[in-house]
Amino acid sequence: MKHTPRKLKRCPGRPVTGVDGDAREHLLTAATELFALQGVAATSFAAIAKRAGLTPAMMHYYFKDRDHLLDCVVEEKIAPMIASVWRPVDPDAAPAEMLRGVVGRLVAGIERMPWIPSTWMREVLNEGGLLRGRVLRKLPFDKVRLVSEAVARAQAKGEIQADLDPVLMVFSMLGLVMMHLATAPFFAEVFHRKEPDAQAIGRHITALLRHGLQPPGASARKNMRKGK
Amino acid sequence: MKHTPRKLKRCPGRPVTGVDGDAREHLLTAATELFALQGVAATSFAAIAKRAGLTPAMMHYYFKDRDHLLDCVVEEKIAPMIASVWRPVDPDAAPAEMLRGVVGRLVAGIERMPWIPSTWMREVLNEGGLLRGRVLRKLPFDKVRLVSEAVARAQAKGEIQADLDPVLMVFSMLGLVMMHLATAPFFAEVFHRKEPDAQAIGRHITALLRHGLQPPGASARKNMRKGK
Repeated sequence: MKHTPRKLKRCPGRPVTGVDGDAREHLLTAATELFALQGVAATSFAAIAKRAGLTPAMMHYYFKDRDHLLDCVVEEKIAPMIASVWRPVDPDAAPAEMLRGVVGRLVAGIERMPWIPSTWMREVLNEGGLLRGRVLRKLPFDKVRLVSEAVARAQAKGEIQADLDPVLMVFSMLGLVMMHLATAPFFAEVFHRKEPDAQAIGRHITALLRHGLQPPGASARKNMRKGK
Repeated sequence: MKHTPRKLKRCPGRPVTGVDGDAREHLLTAATELFALQGVAATSFAAIAKRAGLTPAMMHYYFKDRDHLLDCVVEEKIAPMIASVWRPVDPDAAPAEMLRGVVGRLVAGIERMPWIPSTWMREVLNEGGLLRGRVLRKLPFDKVRLVSEAVARAQAKGEIQADLDPVLMVFSMLGLVMMHLATAPFFAEVFHRKEPDAQAIGRHITALLRHGLQPPGASARKNMRKGK
């Protein structure tokens, strides 16, 4: 496995080259899976090693302690995903386009890393969550602010209803994606339905954010009238 | 304090009359507050008694064990709140009215019992949540189904966009309320804003569910055209 010097600098336990890279990657993957299933607090180094089919000594070779392990999970797994979601946000796009883009990229990222939503619910949203501070430091607030500013500008022009809170809107968007994807099996069990896949959930959320309970043509009519 | 025979039957530890009722109520209140702060698993009988200013012996006098305590919290606190939210749903109302009613009553119930949202997130939504089964048994599925059926009927008539999933919509609605109310202090901290109160959050969610990013007049125009 190859590792870039930039990432090496950000998480010192990460080896530059060699077969060891695979073992370390297996351990990180096992850790994220257990975090999603049972939370960070309930997950021991021994359990992670066992899930990865390796020894606890290997865990301690790569990760000094739990803090170091959490640093590596955030630096190598969560931060790149957050960046991939927010980096492409275009300050000149319409709010609906921004929201559609963020939701789409977030859903795509979660399809690659299905352990993300329940970990986010448990370890970021919950009081006392063990990844809260680390994950917050990775949120690109300049990009996040672009979305709420675009909503507020459109409201000022009367293009979006005034009762929406532009900043809460960002939280609604992220929360809907994380909540629906974290609870899809639970939802299916409660309502006796087939578990919705990530793409179906993404379509529902994008539709909800863009039009709510409005008829399908409402936006098209408005945009036509305005010559958009 | 007076207690009705109906409630006595539902939770046997509950005394019929007498000053003891107050002590028991203090203990239940302390339990719900601690559940919200730190979760059910981390909350001991001793900690609950201490918070209520009473002795552990009092806890054991009223509540046989943790299962019994959780039964009482659900029967006496959570079930009446769920019933107050769902009972008034009118099968003949328009979807937007149903959603507005459910969100409004849920927000009002949480204003009386602010410990509800974080407990719901942690103990119902999370995998392994310790109230999941008990709370689910209290959900009035006949009423819940009315909302998704009304959305589906309106979609069939072309009055609501087809991309919304009518059943996921119920989950979106409940999830938005619980998530925003559970995380209002966190949200305020992250975005350097005053903590939004429950009414402001309720207005935002109702607006989002009804109109999404549509202009304020979209619904009025459509309704006028249809002579509603």
